[in-house]
Amino acid sequence: MSRITGLSTADVRFPTSLMLDGSDAMNPDPDYSAAYLRVDTDADDGLTGHGFVFTIGRGNDVQVAAIDALAQHLTGQDVEALLADMGGTWRSLVHDSQLRWLGPEKGVMHMAIGAAVTALWDLKAKRTGQPLWRLLAAMSPEELVDLVDFRYLSDALTRDEALAILRAAEPGRAEREAALVREGYPAYTTTPGWLGYDDEKLARLCREAVAEGFTQIKLKVGADLADDVRRLKLAREAVGPGIRIAVDANQRWDVADAIAWVTALAPFDLAWVEEPTSPDDVLGHAAISRGIAPIPVATGEHMANRVMFKQFLQADALQVLQLDATRVAGVNENIAILLLAAKFGVPVCPHAGGVGLCEAVQHIAMFDFVAVSGTREGRLIEFVDHLHEHFVTPVEVGDGRYRTPLAPGAGTEMLAASLAEYTVGAHG
Amino acid sequence: MSRITGLSTADVRFPTSLMLDGSDAMNPDPDYSAAYLRVDTDADDGLTGHGFVFTIGRGNDVQVAAIDALAQHLTGQDVEALLADMGGTWRSLVHDSQLRWLGPEKGVMHMAIGAAVTALWDLKAKRTGQPLWRLLAAMSPEELVDLVDFRYLSDALTRDEALAILRAAEPGRAEREAALVREGYPAYTTTPGWLGYDDEKLARLCREAVAEGFTQIKLKVGADLADDVRRLKLAREAVGPGIRIAVDANQRWDVADAIAWVTALAPFDLAWVEEPTSPDDVLGHAAISRGIAPIPVATGEHMANRVMFKQFLQADALQVLQLDATRVAGVNENIAILLLAAKFGVPVCPHAGGVGLCEAVQHIAMFDFVAVSGTREGRLIEFVDHLHEHFVTPVEVGDGRYRTPLAPGAGTEMLAASLAEYTVGAHG
Repeated sequence: MSRITGLSTADVRFPTSLMLDGSDAMNPDPDYSAAYLRVDTDADDGLTGHGFVFTIGRGNDVQVAAIDALAQHLTGQDVEALLADMGGTWRSLVHDSQLRWLGPEKGVMHMAIGAAVTALWDLKAKRTGQPLWRLLAAMSPEELVDLVDFRYLSDALTRDEALAILRAAEPGRAEREAALVREGYPAYTTTPGWLGYDDEKLARLCREAVAEGFTQIKLKVGADLADDVRRLKLAREAVGPGIRIAVDANQRWDVADAIAWVTALAPFDLAWVEEPTSPDDVLGHAAISRGIAPIPVATGEHMANRVMFKQFLQADALQVLQLDATRVAGVNENIAILLLAAKFGVPVCPHAGGVGLCEAVQHIAMFDFVAVSGTREGRLIEFVDHLHEHFVTPVEVGDGRYRTPLAPGAGTEMLAASLAEYTVGAHG
Repeated sequence: MSRITGLSTADVRFPTSLMLDGSDAMNPDPDYSAAYLRVDTDADDGLTGHGFVFTIGRGNDVQVAAIDALAQHLTGQDVEALLADMGGTWRSLVHDSQLRWLGPEKGVMHMAIGAAVTALWDLKAKRTGQPLWRLLAAMSPEELVDLVDFRYLSDALTRDEALAILRAAEPGRAEREAALVREGYPAYTTTPGWLGYDDEKLARLCREAVAEGFTQIKLKVGADLADDVRRLKLAREAVGPGIRIAVDANQRWDVADAIAWVTALAPFDLAWVEEPTSPDDVLGHAAISRGIAPIPVATGEHMANRVMFKQFLQADALQVLQLDATRVAGVNENIAILLLAAKFGVPVCPHAGGVGLCEAVQHIAMFDFVAVSGTREGRLIEFVDHLHEHFVTPVEVGDGRYRTPLAPGAGTEMLAASLAEYTVGAHG
């Protein structure tokens, strides 16, 4: 038996605002950051579990403080017991009534729990010598539904319905796993489209994206309509008619604005419209979906929890579901969201970029393909070519696809040298 | 001109779990706490602004850290400029893109901004020598709408519609203010109904509530149906048929459970059913509202922001709106919520209790009566008789009514002696 000996946290910040990487209509100057966590144990294997919350700068210290607050729940605990019942472990954190009051199940405290849960999954995957996606994809339907908290979901998805979805996907698991390892998973790139880039850089990066094998790119929009029209025209000319172009407004609009603005951009053949308005606005997104159909609405990266995803699906308020690795409470809640998406037949195209989101979320999408939805059709993982060099197992993307990770773990471990260099307030 | 010289914060915790005060179906052992803030200036008047976030124990330190993170926005700022444009001040905090990422507009960071905004309102009210409710009620409709951020609201409430609501209420302001000072504002009491109290204590406190002049009490339910039936029967016998009894499930149920459970309790003549399920579940509450009509659904104390309130009103998912003084981003966002409620014709019965929530929220309800809805009809402020002795201007409740506060400020200042005694980790 081994015990958790402690959590070590770090306030990691990269000065990305200097280059306007990541600039959009709502976030003009992000400094990509991670509230980072390492879980240590007294086991002889020397393995550690790593997790983080992605933030864009100020407040990363608050996020670190929230992760620190979980030490009292985890330090001293029996590691094997925690890892053997990850559903119970998740509930013991999320259902703590006093911590729950700080959300409930949303914002800083919920994301902190996500970092801890993911760090435990990282540890569990390393202990079994498997990449997280394969560890999950080897679990039985019964074991998988035990990971999910169906509280507040039962009007849309019951445990039995989830079991049926997972059982229906069981027969083809082995073939899909082989295909995944052979072919990887499709990606799209947001690298060309940041709002702070000038036209020359935009066009050049669009051409490069096509040359690199991507079949979809994404542009940030929503600050100025005339600029958006000019940039979309440039991008469409640069990539040609065969490449899909999605646009992302990063919550800039109200409902009527969104419909009018997207209607003006529709001639450029939009793959989807992302985050048109507040991520809390189920009814607003439903109205926008009706107003801009057949252009799909994509959202999810800022959606607080499974209850919000449930409603967006119930109301047909999104047609592309973009879960995020660190916004909800970790791997378990993302499995709940995958099951909801499968129930409603909506494709999951995860949000990524930031710090380590690509590394983390690829495991969720690949698990989905092998064991939940059973398809890659209409699904792509976002890719942004930033900051991968700071991770122990950086993503490998080529020919417009994520190569399937085979190293043990959840992909969430940063290099010690990067932690040392970019941790704020650390000595040494 | 004066400047903010600094924020002082305190992690204040009361050991209420020892008495099971505040126990309910989701929160068995709360330790009522406040993440407390004092804003100091270099003005000669020596006045300070006070605000806080109510929490129930663990994690209060995280909430304090979030308030501390606002020091960089406020320290050194021109006080007169901040207070003269409280709408702009609110936006400068809530729209900070990096802090916003931590919500957006929800959870720990959003509540921290609420504490800061309320502390500034407390300071402004003290500088004008007025209680907050009267300061607000003396502002013009134009000044009031300038306090509100209509982003994400315009599909339900525009600035012009809000102006029309406020202008329609202008003529009777003086008479209503006089009536308010003379008569106070109706209250209901939750004191009898905590889940941890035994039957004898429940019945005794019910009788006392009636003797004290309350016309409505509230009971916690949702842990065990047989217990709820027994307790409601006891309570109904103790208060008689003329007193309204509301029940509060504190988010315990899924949609179908809620409808079945409430149907079983309906014979006891329920005034409303509070928080039947997740506070994020607009569609779930709408289904419950349809399922238990004509019994009203009441919710709001855990609703993250104005976008959620907008949708609950659009979907007829609540029939009694329970805003909370410290859950959303302070006084400004609560004014937005009052305007939404007025637009949809729904009564506001604020959540209170906890630490200082009665002291703070009475100002919002009283301002609503004088200048927004123009009525007290069907409206009550929750009252719980706990912890008032720690405030400089504690509420005065008698004959089932809040006495109208006349002391300058927002009611949010705690006694220095209480802060010294209950601050965790403070020396001396």
